[in-house]
Amino acid sequence: MAYHLLQHDRAGAQRLGEAVQHALQAIRHCQRCNTFTEVDVCERCNSSRRDSSLLCVVETPVDMNMMEQTLAYQGLYYVLMGRISPLDGIGSRELGLERLMARAQDGVVQEVILATNFTNEGEATAHYVTAMLKQKGIKVSRIARGVPVGGELEYVDSGTLAQSLRERKTYQE
Amino acid sequence: MAYHLLQHDRAGAQRLGEAVQHALQAIRHCQRCNTFTEVDVCERCNSSRRDSSLLCVVETPVDMNMMEQTLAYQGLYYVLMGRISPLDGIGSRELGLERLMARAQDGVVQEVILATNFTNEGEATAHYVTAMLKQKGIKVSRIARGVPVGGELEYVDSGTLAQSLRERKTYQE
Repeated sequence: MAYHLLQHDRAGAQRLGEAVQHALQAIRHCQRCNTFTEVDVCERCNSSRRDSSLLCVVETPVDMNMMEQTLAYQGLYYVLMGRISPLDGIGSRELGLERLMARAQDGVVQEVILATNFTNEGEATAHYVTAMLKQKGIKVSRIARGVPVGGELEYVDSGTLAQSLRERKTYQE
Repeated sequence: MAYHLLQHDRAGAQRLGEAVQHALQAIRHCQRCNTFTEVDVCERCNSSRRDSSLLCVVETPVDMNMMEQTLAYQGLYYVLMGRISPLDGIGSRELGLERLMARAQDGVVQEVILATNFTNEGEATAHYVTAMLKQKGIKVSRIARGVPVGGELEYVDSGTLAQSLRERKTYQE
C-alpha cells in the first residue's frame, strides 16, 4: 500500500495522512462507557431508549458491536479496552477497573452482565470483576457457556460439552 | 476397496463377509438404553457404579460416546437411534418414544437430561419429549446453549450470542 501511494497516488496519501491526524485529534473515549467516540458522552449512553439498569461489560468495541448485532440487548455497555493479562503486565490498575466500579455504582445500574471472552484472560477478568462488584453488593451475571445454536454433539469439544451438562437448564413445571 | 479385495485378497474378503454376518447376527439393541450391544442389557446399564437416578437422552451411540468422553457424567443413557424429522417421515411412533417413556418411569429415574443436538430436528425432538415427560410429572432438563469454552465473542454467531445473553447465569451472593 505504501509503494502504491508513493508512486501512483500522492494526493491520496496526503488525504490519508490528514484523516489519520484528524482521527487522532477527534476520537477519544466516552466518559461513561469508555468506547471510542468523537463527543464527550457517546450516542448510545445518551439514548433514552436504552435500559440503563443493565450494564454489559465487554473487552473491546468490536465485542460491543457483536452484542448489538444480536438485537437481543437493550441495556448499556462498559468497554474495558483490554483484559487482565499478567503475562503482558496488564492488571486491574492498568485496565482502570476503578472507573468501571464507579460506573456500576451510579445508583441506576441493577445488574452487571459480564460478556468478556471465554479465553483464559477473559475468564480471569470476569472472576476479578465479579469479586470486586460482589464486595459492593452489586448483582453480577455471566453470559452462558454451552453448545452453540445449530451445534451437534459429535463436533463439540469435550470441555464445552461438560460445561453444557453442568449448566443444564431445568424446564419449569 | 472392492476391486482390491477381489483382485489381491480374496481370503480377506471372505473374512470380511463373515465378520459382517456375525455382526448382523450378534449385535442388537440394549433392552434398557437402546444402544448397540451383543448382550440383552449392556455393560453400562448393568453397572452398579453409575447413578441410575439420571437419564441422559441422546440421538445416537456416537453422541453417547461424546458424553462419556467428557468424564463429567455418571448417570445412565437412553439412545433414540434417530430424531423426530417430519420431512423424512419420522415421528414419535417411528422413533419408539413410548419405550423412552416406560424407561423414564421406572421409579428410579429422578431427572431426564435432554442432550439431543441443537439442530432443528434435535430441538423439535427435545420439545416433544419434554411435553411428554412433563405430562407424567418427570423432571426434565436440557444441556446449556451458549458460547463454547475458549470462544471469543468476535467469532461467535449472533444467534448463539443472543441465546448466551438470554440464558446468562447469575453469580450467587
